[in-house]
Parts: sequence; structure tokens; C-alpha cells
Amino acid sequence: MKVQQIIKDNHLGLLFRQGTFGIEKESQRVYEDGSVVTTPHPEVLGKRSYHPYIQTDFAESQLELITPPNKSVEDSLRWLSAIHEVVLRSLPENEYIFPLSMPAGLPPEDQIKVAQLEDPADVAYREHLVAVYGKNKQMVSGIHYNFQLAPELINALFQAQRKYDDAVAFQNDLYLKMAKNFLRYQWILVYLLAATPTVEADYFNGASPLQAGQYVRSLRSSRYGYVNEADIIVSFDSLEKYVETLEHWVSSGRLIAEKEFYSNVRLRGAKKARELLSSGIRYLEFRLFDLNPFAPYGITLEDAKFIHHFILLMIWMDQSADQAGIELGKERLAQVAFEHPLQQTAYRTEGEEILTALLEMLKVLGAEQSEQDFVAAKLAQFADPGLTLGGRLLREIEGAGGYRKLGAELARRNKAQAMERFYALSAFDNMELSTQALMFDLIRQGIKTEILDERDQFLCLQFGEHIEYVKNGNMTSHDSYISPLIMENKVVTKKVLAKAGFNVPQSLEFTSVQQALASYPLFEKRAVVIKPKSTNYGLGISIFQQGLQSREDFATALEIAFREDKEVMVEDYLSGTEYRFFVLGEQTLAVLLRVPANVIGDGVHTVAQLVAEKNAHPLRGDGSRTPLKKIALGDIEGLQLKEQGLSFDSVPAKDQLVQLRANSNISTGGDSIDMTDEMHPSYKELAVGISKAMGAAVCGVDLIIPDLKQAAQPNLNSWGVIEANFNPMMMMHIFPYSGKSRRVTLNVIHMLFPELKGREDMK
Amino acid sequence: MKVQQIIKDNHLGLLFRQGTFGIEKESQRVYEDGSVVTTPHPEVLGKRSYHPYIQTDFAESQLELITPPNKSVEDSLRWLSAIHEVVLRSLPENEYIFPLSMPAGLPPEDQIKVAQLEDPADVAYREHLVAVYGKNKQMVSGIHYNFQLAPELINALFQAQRKYDDAVAFQNDLYLKMAKNFLRYQWILVYLLAATPTVEADYFNGASPLQAGQYVRSLRSSRYGYVNEADIIVSFDSLEKYVETLEHWVSSGRLIAEKEFYSNVRLRGAKKARELLSSGIRYLEFRLFDLNPFAPYGITLEDAKFIHHFILLMIWMDQSADQAGIELGKERLAQVAFEHPLQQTAYRTEGEEILTALLEMLKVLGAEQSEQDFVAAKLAQFADPGLTLGGRLLREIEGAGGYRKLGAELARRNKAQAMERFYALSAFDNMELSTQALMFDLIRQGIKTEILDERDQFLCLQFGEHIEYVKNGNMTSHDSYISPLIMENKVVTKKVLAKAGFNVPQSLEFTSVQQALASYPLFEKRAVVIKPKSTNYGLGISIFQQGLQSREDFATALEIAFREDKEVMVEDYLSGTEYRFFVLGEQTLAVLLRVPANVIGDGVHTVAQLVAEKNAHPLRGDGSRTPLKKIALGDIEGLQLKEQGLSFDSVPAKDQLVQLRANSNISTGGDSIDMTDEMHPSYKELAVGISKAMGAAVCGVDLIIPDLKQAAQPNLNSWGVIEANFNPMMMMHIFPYSGKSRRVTLNVIHMLFPELKGREDMK
Repeated sequence: MKVQQIIKDNHLGLLFRQGTFGIEKESQRVYEDGSVVTTPHPEVLGKRSYHPYIQTDFAESQLELITPPNKSVEDSLRWLSAIHEVVLRSLPENEYIFPLSMPAGLPPEDQIKVAQLEDPADVAYREHLVAVYGKNKQMVSGIHYNFQLAPELINALFQAQRKYDDAVAFQNDLYLKMAKNFLRYQWILVYLLAATPTVEADYFNGASPLQAGQYVRSLRSSRYGYVNEADIIVSFDSLEKYVETLEHWVSSGRLIAEKEFYSNVRLRGAKKARELLSSGIRYLEFRLFDLNPFAPYGITLEDAKFIHHFILLMIWMDQSADQAGIELGKERLAQVAFEHPLQQTAYRTEGEEILTALLEMLKVLGAEQSEQDFVAAKLAQFADPGLTLGGRLLREIEGAGGYRKLGAELARRNKAQAMERFYALSAFDNMELSTQALMFDLIRQGIKTEILDERDQFLCLQFGEHIEYVKNGNMTSHDSYISPLIMENKVVTKKVLAKAGFNVPQSLEFTSVQQALASYPLFEKRAVVIKPKSTNYGLGISIFQQGLQSREDFATALEIAFREDKEVMVEDYLSGTEYRFFVLGEQTLAVLLRVPANVIGDGVHTVAQLVAEKNAHPLRGDGSRTPLKKIALGDIEGLQLKEQGLSFDSVPAKDQLVQLRANSNISTGGDSIDMTDEMHPSYKELAVGISKAMGAAVCGVDLIIPDLKQAAQPNLNSWGVIEANFNPMMMMHIFPYSGKSRRVTLNVIHMLFPELKGREDMK
Repeated sequence: MKVQQIIKDNHLGLLFRQGTFGIEKESQRVYEDGSVVTTPHPEVLGKRSYHPYIQTDFAESQLELITPPNKSVEDSLRWLSAIHEVVLRSLPENEYIFPLSMPAGLPPEDQIKVAQLEDPADVAYREHLVAVYGKNKQMVSGIHYNFQLAPELINALFQAQRKYDDAVAFQNDLYLKMAKNFLRYQWILVYLLAATPTVEADYFNGASPLQAGQYVRSLRSSRYGYVNEADIIVSFDSLEKYVETLEHWVSSGRLIAEKEFYSNVRLRGAKKARELLSSGIRYLEFRLFDLNPFAPYGITLEDAKFIHHFILLMIWMDQSADQAGIELGKERLAQVAFEHPLQQTAYRTEGEEILTALLEMLKVLGAEQSEQDFVAAKLAQFADPGLTLGGRLLREIEGAGGYRKLGAELARRNKAQAMERFYALSAFDNMELSTQALMFDLIRQGIKTEILDERDQFLCLQFGEHIEYVKNGNMTSHDSYISPLIMENKVVTKKVLAKAGFNVPQSLEFTSVQQALASYPLFEKRAVVIKPKSTNYGLGISIFQQGLQSREDFATALEIAFREDKEVMVEDYLSGTEYRFFVLGEQTLAVLLRVPANVIGDGVHTVAQLVAEKNAHPLRGDGSRTPLKKIALGDIEGLQLKEQGLSFDSVPAKDQLVQLRANSNISTGGDSIDMTDEMHPSYKELAVGISKAMGAAVCGVDLIIPDLKQAAQPNLNSWGVIEANFNPMMMMHIFPYSGKSRRVTLNVIHMLFPELKGREDMK
């Protein structure tokens, strides 16, 4: 199969480098000292009966984190990061994720709890493994790397060749070639990426094959790792032979099931091997990767790309390993795995040949220079084993005083890093924080999530057969289309609310300054708000709280408003405090008070110092990548201080409230204060009614309320509504500056998937 | 009650001129010769049991057209125009609306059919009227003018006075003053606006009080019009006395009901007069206006404003008429009504005094000069009766050879004018044609319609208690919010459609020219479409139907697309014809083919002449105020001709198709051809499925279909979908260039109000 030539002749290089990727990563939950926990799988991580992202492998302590299939390695690593952040932030405070494949501080075998799965067959299979291999060996963790070639590539290759008439047979042989050559040369990846040089003595129950102080490249890939007995040989000569031999070992009872065949390559695409004969091999699973303890989540992006290219080389090369070659490869694997990490490998020449071929392939394919450089660096590691991952790890282990200590230290560091921006999902940080918060909850609850358009914050959610689409965190199928259209238009909003009987301040609309000025007598001495018809973050709004005193003031305010819109409203001013009600369906989930940027004096520090101190709050930052914004020390703040007889260098008295802004927007450094429990329930009911009148499923209702403790009365002295907002902000409720957090994203999920109730253990 | 002084002192002039207005206009349906029809009320005009706009008055032939309450006289007149256009376009071809109050060509009394209303009480009342007054007198038509002062004005006046403690009593006396003074001076309006100088002899069944050739100002307001017997006097001294005296006449049997009291002012606000004592008078109804035959719809805007000002004067003036004054006013009315239209009135001095006071009031209120000029012109009519409406009418009647002939001629002219732009509602022409078409149907069906925001095309519809909001003709509560968000994004649309199993061409998205160029090998020699990610009326799209031949072509196309959007798609080109499917709910209502601007040669005329001829089509115009657009003779058209070896001056052969555009947009002069009946039903089902997958209630689906007669197959050779459109255009289906009209606006109404089914007689 001259794949290389066909690709060159048909300009298929780009298609060849496409593919679908998936990563499964096992790891042990551990305590601060690196020892494996004996606690059950945390309930907060959702039900394992359906969870697509967070599972347990062999043991209750052994997390299995699974990325969805992605069209790029980069995206798979992003998902791996996101799932890790969700898990790390959900673990009990004293639990961590161990970053090394070999477990440390194993409990006595009888205290190792097999994963408590719902399906009895899953539990029975684990019991069998215990009987055959013992529990300790099952506690070893690693990474499985799933790879599928682009179907368009396979089709193009098939069209361009003449040997095969059957497309499925062609596809099977293509994947088999990849599998066979991989098995032949897999030792190279172990040489470069192995990271299991040692293990604690109890792992072998006292009978360690390692001499004191002996290190190897990979215990996990050695004969002491997780391997079948040596005589269990499955043929890769053809798919038919593969199926036959594999079924033989199962029917003869040497394997309890096909999945007990621990090949470092698995043929995937069907539940049973025999089904592959008709369905065809859809993708391969490569299983030999040790966790990289220096990568926060077990594998680096560069290595993941390197593995992709290595796999591609397996079909790019003209030769195809036969069964003897496979056996040779397995032998070399075992041998290399047991070499000392700082020792040159016995097969250096072959390794260098293969990586040179890989480099050549990347050149032909026009890969980026950085990718070529990375391979060249790997090539150099054959001359200097100290540069390999194993070599580096050895030095770190010795420096830390043992692999358990090193692992525990790295585990703590990884968790601390994941907690740093606890309100974000680092890998999806180019989306809005609200969408990140929603994705956090989706991943944790186990709702399949696909990002349809990252820039547009468009998600597709799926639970069973039930599909929902979400944009910007809370725009869903549950809202009626007319509802945002009503809310976009303040005039229409008020008419609709007035029709439904809510307290709405009177207003008139104008299309020109002149037209509005002609109506000046209607507003003279009245307290009014002049504002553009369409919402624009408070731009162009003037308030005459004490009543409109002159035609000139009116004209100025009108001109400011007309800069923002072609239509301007003059509205009766309502006195009271503005609260934001977050309504979802039948319930007001959160009430928030927004307070203009301020500091409280302590009699010692200057305003500038107090601001700096307040800005150090973990939620404050640029306001787009953080839930709250730092208070600026700009002209507007300076003016505001001046009105209070202060400057940035003044030292305000103890408990003196210093205002740095007149407006209460969070985006100008304002404080968000949760008032949900303080608010009289009557207003919460009103907000629900207003949301319903708008036809909204999710709605942000702004009410002006003079006294939140008094029950609402049916007149504007008691309360008034000015506008309602679709797609209301969620972050400010989830992460308020003070008061209780309201995880409204979870409510959005439950609104979309009511069937989740009872299927999960909600906190 | 010193209203004038309070208004001046408190700057209430603007509020004083505000108010709510409503017009009710009766008129006879007539044949071409002006004679009253004997046909039933047209079923197409909806059910009279609930119709808010189109009713019948006394007779089946007597239309009563009712405007909704409006905040300005202008809006009332717009509604009057719209309702008239709806009625005129819905009448049988040989029926018209008679423009004069006095009927002509009356059928024998036994053939005059009393309005066939559902409520037996309504019919019984009419039978009573027949017994008391005879049928002929009931056939006289006129205009009722409803007026309510701004509640804010009444409140402000009440606050500013000291005599009244009770706001309702104050309000009642305010309206009573208006009513009394109106009755005192009503004769002035008759002098100026009367238009019933004569009637055919059969009207009096041979006993005409008019001598041969005698003309009067207003038969209708004279004692031969529609008046109670002279001794039936109702007191206006106070609301209590009014109620007492009115109830007396009813209980004594002299009136069958309160509504038989034919005062030229009615106190409104409750069903029974007695209820007014608690509820208060809410508004007044002025009933003495003859139809103005020179106004297409019975009253001019200037006269309507004049009447408003005249009514205001009735409370502005300090004096208040007593009962004797009212009786004097009634007497003068009868007298003036019987004067010859060209004769100076006996009460010229009083008339001039009142209009001078009116002019003075307008000056004080700062009314526009044109409004003052109009009053001044009316004032001058006292010196020259020939300038009054009656005077002018007399000359026209004599010129036409009788009032019936004049009426018939004007009726034909009015109908022709209403038919001219049959696809529009002239009065609402600043809204989109689709919204106008929807409003046409709403008015005809009798759905209460309120324009919440004209610029935004925002309507509130109400049938019984059921309220619906509509924006831009078909954006409603029936669509899910997520659905337009999906459709706005072509990439997401395709992913959603592909997920749902529809044929979607493959595509890739790019964020830069460079990034896309790197993928050039993927597209080389493939037929592709390069387009911006967001829909923009076909801007920035390049099509390589014959396959992409060079990197340079690709780069150029990419650059063009990136000018329109930050993201660009490269999509497989589908060959076939594009059809627009208009889907509503479970049904494809219309299928349209759009053909690029073209003419067909006749071997005689030049291209320019053929274009001019085609552009004369009634549907063609500027494309925003007309359903189709005129073909331009611009550069692009010139180039297109050049490619065919033609110029604007060429004479194409007979039947030669000459293309003037490559693109098929209606907005560049394309033809719209209805293909609903031609399209194989399988595609219509597909379109419904696609609309459902989008979560849309109303959706425009664009399918590429090579052969519309062949049933759809599940592959891209049979059909493909590229995008779906929310808020799809409706006009092109309602008024196609050729093929059957599909009145999709009616379907929108039935979707919103399913309860209408069975309550109306649908065509």
C-alpha cells in the first residue's frame, strides 16, 4: 500500500494531517501526601451510569477523564484541561489528582474498593481482573489516545488506488497497517515518553523485581506492568485472522472477554471484534502512554501532536510489519522498558532511523517549523537519554526524595493552579464567563456538550436523545422569539407591561430635539429621566431628580440622548433603589444590588491605597476575564472624589464611604451584593409576573424599590419597572462581591433538561 | 369654571390640546349608478358579532366603519383611510361606497333589509325604529366624532381649582360644559360643514318638504332629518338631571331605549346613563357631521382638526350655556340647516364672534400658523357662503346633473384610487409592505390591532382576551428564541441541519485569507462557493461552478468575502435551481422561483424599450413601496448585456431571453414566479422538516433542486439545503410577478388565533 506516493501525487497532505482525536486519562485521587484515597467517587461529579466525561476506571479512587472526539489535538487538550478543572474544583479540600502513572501509598489490597458501577457485569469484570492480576496492578494509570483518519482522506486514497475493490476492506487494511507498524515501533515512544521508572515496594507485595535503587524506563510497559500472558498472541495479519485468534482466546477461557486483550493498539468501531468485519475499523486506540507528571493534565500538547505524527508515519512508511515484526516490536518494548532511563537504548539506530523518516515526512507535508524542530529535539534524545522524559523525571524524583513526594508536590501545585481563576474554564477563556460557568456545570453534570460556534457562544447540549441549543449562556428554545424583540425596545416593553397591569412610569417619545422641546411645558418642574429608546449600557441617559428647571437643561439632555438613538424617551423619574431580579421560569433565583465603585476609609490609608487593596480581590480584574472589574483611578473617579472634597491622596476617616463613581455599573468597578434573602417576597413574585408578561423563560428584571422590606403595593410609590433584559448576566449572581453565590447556570440546565431531576445527586 | 385662566396660569396649553379621538362613519354601499345595493353585507368583511372596525348600521347595505381610539386626529384619519381601503378592495366589483350622507336610488321600503345582526335585541331595536321613523330616514349616513380630554389635563385642572372636592364631579361638569356649549353653538359647524342640500323625492315617499329646485344647508340636521320629537327634552343642567330626564322618557315609553335619544352630543363612558354618575363621563360623542363628499373617506384632516379646536373652545370660553341656551342652539341649528347654502346665515355675527374667539384661543395656545389660517378661512366663509362646503357642493351637484350622479362619479373615483396601489395600505406606507399586508388582513378579519412602534413594525393584536405581539409581519411568540439565533449563523445552521439528517453541502470555515489559502489543496478543482458566515443579501459570495482552478482565484474570492465578515465559509457547490419555500408550522404554504432581471425580445423593440414596458407592470416600482422592483439600466445591466453581445439599443429577436442581471434577487429587478403547485410534494415535506429542526414557526427555506418533478432522494444530487431564514419575506408570495398569489399573512393570523376558525367565513 503506497500511501505516501498517493498522497504526494494527489496533493492529499492536508487531508492526511486531519483527523479526529480523543483522550482518556486515568489517575488516582490521593491525599495531600500522595497516598491513594479510600473515599468513594464524589457524588458531585455526577452519575457514572451516563457520564460522558468523568468516570472511574478499575477502582473507586481511580478517575477516568474522557474528552469528547475533536477535530484537532489542540481541542482535545482544551477539553482535557476543562474536565480537570471541573474535577479539581469539585474534589474535597484534602483530595488531589496524582500526576504519575504508578500509584503511591496504596492501601492494603482489601481496602482497595472496586469501582461501584451500576451495571453488575462491569463489577464482575473487575472482580475477575482482581483474581487474575491482583488489585495493585489494576491501580496503574495511563493515557489512551484515540485517533481516526479523516473519512475524506480514506475515500480519496481508495479512489486513487487499484488493488482494492471494496472500500471497507481498504479501510481495514489501512488501519491494520497503522496498528502493525505501531506495534513494531512502539518502543520508540516508550523510550521518549515513559515515566514510570519506579514504584513503592508494597506494589509488588514485597516481591519487587527491582533491586534497591534500580530505575527503569517504564514499569508500566514492562512485563511487570499490565500485560497479558506471553503466549496469548493475536494475529494482525488480516482482520479476519485477528477476529479468529481473539475469539479463540476468549472461547478457550484464557481471556474473560475481548477487552482483556491488553494490546497497546485496539481496533475500534464496534462492540465486538467480529462486527468490525462488516462495519469496518473506524479508529484506533493507542494505550501505552504513561502520565507525564510535568504536564498538569498528564500529556503536553507538543507530545500529543508528536504522537499524532508518529501514528501517521506508521501508514506513510512503505513497509508493513508482519506478525514476526509485531512480536519483535513487543520484545523490544519490554526490553527498552526495563532499560535504565539514563542509559542509551540498545535500539538507538532504529529509533533514529524512524524519527529521521518522521522528520522527512513532516517536511514533505509542509508541517510548521516548530513541529519539525520538536521532532528533531526528540531525535537528539537518542544520543542523550538524560533529555528524555524518563531521564528528567529521574532527576526530579531524586531531588524531591522519592516519586511519591514528587507526585504529592506536583498534585498540590496542579490543584492550586486550577483554583486560581476558579470562576473560569482556562481552556475556553475566549468565551464569555457565563458560558464558561455553564460549561463547567454541564461537564460536571455529564451533559454532552458540543461547541458549535465558539465566537458566537453557541452550544449544543445532549442528554440521551434530547438535544438543546444554547447561545450566550441562557438564550434557549424556552424563550419565545417575540420576547427579546419586546425587551429590545423600551417603548414597546413599557406598553406591554402597562397592558399587563404592572407599575410603569409614564413617558413620551420624540424623534427630534425640536419636537421634544415643543413639549417642554409638559415636563417643566417634573422629575424626569431622558434616555435613548434602545438599551445601550446606560449611555446617553440624563436624570433630573429634582425636577427639570430650564428649557436649556432639557435641550442639553436631549442632545446627549439623541447621540445614541434616533428616538428618545422622556420618562417620569422613580425614586428608590434599583435591584436586578434574575428570573427563571416561575422563580426569582437571585436579587442583586449594584453599588457604585467605592472604598471605605480606615483613617490610615489614602484613597489610592484603599483602591489598590480593594482591587486585590480575586474576583476583580479587567471585567471580561474576571467577574468584577478593578476600580480605575481616572479622570471620572478624580472628579467624583473632588465633589466630596477628596483626592486620590486623601486619607478618608475610619468608616467613611468614599464614592469613586456615580453610576452603579459593575463594568466601572461597582460592587455586586446579593440581596436575594433580604428582598420581600412580593417583589420576587412581581418579577416573575413581569418575566411572564414578556414571554421570557430567563429574564433580568430591574425594579426600583424604595423599601425592600415593605410588601409591594400597586402604585409607583411602592415600586416601578423600567425595563426587562433578555440574556441577563449570570456571573454577577454566581460570583457576587458580597453575599451568597447563586449558581443560576445550574437552573438553566435543569430548565432545559428537567429529566435530570432524580437522575443526579444535586447539591 | 375658569378653564382658560387655569390653563394659562399653569402652562397647560399642550396638555389641553392632547386627547383621544375616534371616528365612526356610516355610508351606503351602492351600485355604479349610485343606487343603494340590496346585497347582504359581504362575508369577506368578517363577522359583525365581534368586528371592531367594520359593522353595519341600520341597514344591511349601510356600512359603519369605526376607527380605534387614537392619541391624534392624524392617526384617526389614517385608520379611517386604511379601513376604507380594506373595504373598497373587498367589495364586489360592481359595488362602491356612496360619498354623500343622503341616500340615492333607495329601493322600495320593503326591499330595504335591516342589518342581519346575531343579537335579536339589535334587530328588534331596528324594527322599532322602522315603525317610528320609517326605513328611509334610517338610511341617512353621517360621521360621529368621539373625543376624550387627556386625563392628565383633567387632573391638572382639578388640582388647580378650589370649587370641587370630588374629581369625578369635576370631570362630569367639565364634559357637561363642553356638551352644553356645543349644543348652543353647533349650528356654526352645520353652516360651515353641512353637505346634505337635497335628496331624491322618493326619500319622502312623495311628500317632500322641499320645493322644486330648493336647496338647504343640511337636510340631515334639519327637522326632516334624524331627530326626536320636539317635546323630548333632556336636561343638561347636571348629570343627575340628565339621567333623570332621560330615564323618564324611556320609562314613559316615548323612547324605546336611551340610545334612541338622538342628541348631537352623547355622554359616553358607561352602557347606561345612570352608571355615569359613579364612573364619570369618560368622553363625548358628537354626531352632527354630514359626510364630506370631497374627502375620499367622508372627512378631511383639516376639518377634523378644526372640529377638535371648536370642541376645545367649548370649555375654553368662560360662559356656559344653560338649558334655555341649549334650546336656543337647537332652534338655530334647525333654522340654519334649512337656509339656502348660498345665502348668508341669519346668525352671521354670532358665528363670526365664536370663530374669532377660536382664533384667539389658538393664538394663546401657540397653535401652528396653518391651523390658525384654516380657522381664519372658515371665518371668511360667513361673508361668502359660496365658500362653505355646502356652497361648493351645490355647484358640483348642478354641474354633474344631480347629487346621485355626482355621488356615483365620486364613488367610482374613490374606489379606483383605493385600488391603485392594491398591495399597500396608503396610510401606513412608512411600514414594510408585509406589515401592511398583515394589517390589511387583520382589519378585514376584525382582529383588534394596535401599532406599538411604527418604526419597529411592532403590532399588538387582540381577539377577545387573547393578545399576541408581532414584529415585522411574522416574528411572533410561536417561534423559539434560539431559532433565529441558529438561522443567523450559517455554520451553526448547517451543523444543526446535518445533525437532524438533512442534505447539507460540506464546508470549512476560516478566519483569515492566509488560513484559508493554506487549505487550498483541499478545494483544488472542486466546485465551491466562497461566502461570508453571516447572511448579508448575497454580498461577498463567489461561486466556482466549474471547480477552483487557481490559488489566485481563491485568494480574490476570499478577499471579497472577508470584506463582509470576519469568518468565511468555503462550501461545496450544489448544482440545481434555488427555490424559496415559505413554511408555516406543518405546512409549506408557498414555493417561489426567483429569476434574474430579464426581458423577452419581440423582434421590434430595443432592450431599453422592452425594459420600460416591463417596468410599467403595476407591481414594479422602487421595491420598497412596491412588491417588485423596476429593472435598472445601469452599468451592471450594461455589462451583462455586453456578455450576450447586446446593448440597451439592440433589438433582440422574437422570444429571445435577454438577461439583465446574473443574480436572481427581486431587489435588482428579478421576477418572482409562484411554483407551489408545480413542486413535488416531497420537497415541501422536507422544507417543513427543516423548519422544525430550526425550531421555527415561520421559516423561509432555500433548497437547491435539480429537478422539481422528481421525488426527493436522500443525497445531495437530489437536493440540498444551504440556509434557512427567519422573518422570511411575504410580499413576494402574496404578489408574485407570475403565478398564483399566496396570502400567507392570513396563515400567520390563523396561527396566532386558531380560535378564529369557525368564527369567520374564510375564502
